[in-house]
Amino acid sequence: MLTFYYAPGTCALASHLALEYAGAPYEAVRLDFRNQQQRSPEYLRVNPKGRVPALVTDRGAISENVAILQYVAQSFPAANLAPLDDPFLLAKVNEFNSYLASTVHVNHAHKGRGYRWVDAEDTAAIEAMKKKVPQTMAESFTLIEEKMLQGPWVLGERFSTADLYLFTIAGWLEGDGVDVQRFPKVAEHMARLAAAPQVQKVVAAQKA
Amino acid sequence: MLTFYYAPGTCALASHLALEYAGAPYEAVRLDFRNQQQRSPEYLRVNPKGRVPALVTDRGAISENVAILQYVAQSFPAANLAPLDDPFLLAKVNEFNSYLASTVHVNHAHKGRGYRWVDAEDTAAIEAMKKKVPQTMAESFTLIEEKMLQGPWVLGERFSTADLYLFTIAGWLEGDGVDVQRFPKVAEHMARLAAAPQVQKVVAAQKA
Repeated sequence: MLTFYYAPGTCALASHLALEYAGAPYEAVRLDFRNQQQRSPEYLRVNPKGRVPALVTDRGAISENVAILQYVAQSFPAANLAPLDDPFLLAKVNEFNSYLASTVHVNHAHKGRGYRWVDAEDTAAIEAMKKKVPQTMAESFTLIEEKMLQGPWVLGERFSTADLYLFTIAGWLEGDGVDVQRFPKVAEHMARLAAAPQVQKVVAAQKA
Repeated sequence: MLTFYYAPGTCALASHLALEYAGAPYEAVRLDFRNQQQRSPEYLRVNPKGRVPALVTDRGAISENVAILQYVAQSFPAANLAPLDDPFLLAKVNEFNSYLASTVHVNHAHKGRGYRWVDAEDTAAIEAMKKKVPQTMAESFTLIEEKMLQGPWVLGERFSTADLYLFTIAGWLEGDGVDVQRFPKVAEHMARLAAAPQVQKVVAAQKA
């Protein structure tokens, strides 16, 4: 049995969706970020970073979506969530997922978590960061739309974890002041996944 | 034959080292960042992000260290650069590498590339970002020292690409105003790798 730690509205949705698509046996545990539960001594023993997602296996915990997504794909190969037999295509999945983690998520984080990179009291700098988020997110999604998302899925005809992660991050665009309809392939991709029963189940569970 | 694009002083060193440790046949191509060569139409056809590293294979280009490192390990398995037969340990390598890419590198980038996240003319915000870099880098390396680097290598007894990436990022600490000697395991790890012939060869080639 796997234990999966998440908080609603976070990037943990990507790994949560992968577990559901994999048909993995897992228990999902919600952390209350408003009460800083991710900083509790109990949770810091699971993930000393104090972040989500974290997936606890019988050999220990794994954090970072990029790592969890491939682990789930490898552990449940019948679900065919990654091109495990093809190192080049697998690298393209990891390239896409790593771009989301290290560039697109980071762009987004400058809206609500600017205190990570400047003093929390420096409200002018915090506001300056917030102000640029619509631009940086739109630039990243222009690249995704024009150069990365082959369609209908990220890899083309082959579905992968990259699609689950893209769905997760694309869901932040509206709140970041970017109209997803500027990116027709991304918008269609998002609508298609939003209608999938696995996605609807996880989204409902996270809201319950 | 692989073609590898890099610029000196960048995170591309990690993938460059992996190619050398793998014994891969590759040609290394240096980009001149001062002349914005990474933004040239020629290079944008290789990597539309305009960043390094990029590894061109006979099937196309791969960017992002996290993806390239695993690709090199999988393509040259005799070099034993990752625990390819163990999905959990491989996830721990990817977890570590993804943390370096999406958190530690991002902390560092707020020193010299703050214009990514605020208007370039907002010198007060740019300075506010620079000011916090010693603190955020020290916090990340405290976590690495105390919770992540098992010693002597990241995974313990087993060497992996995580060691090459750690060596790369730890090399930025001094320039970021952090004394690596505050982190004895990291300092010892860095000194050990700096003495390795593969590392010396690549470092010399990047300086030549």
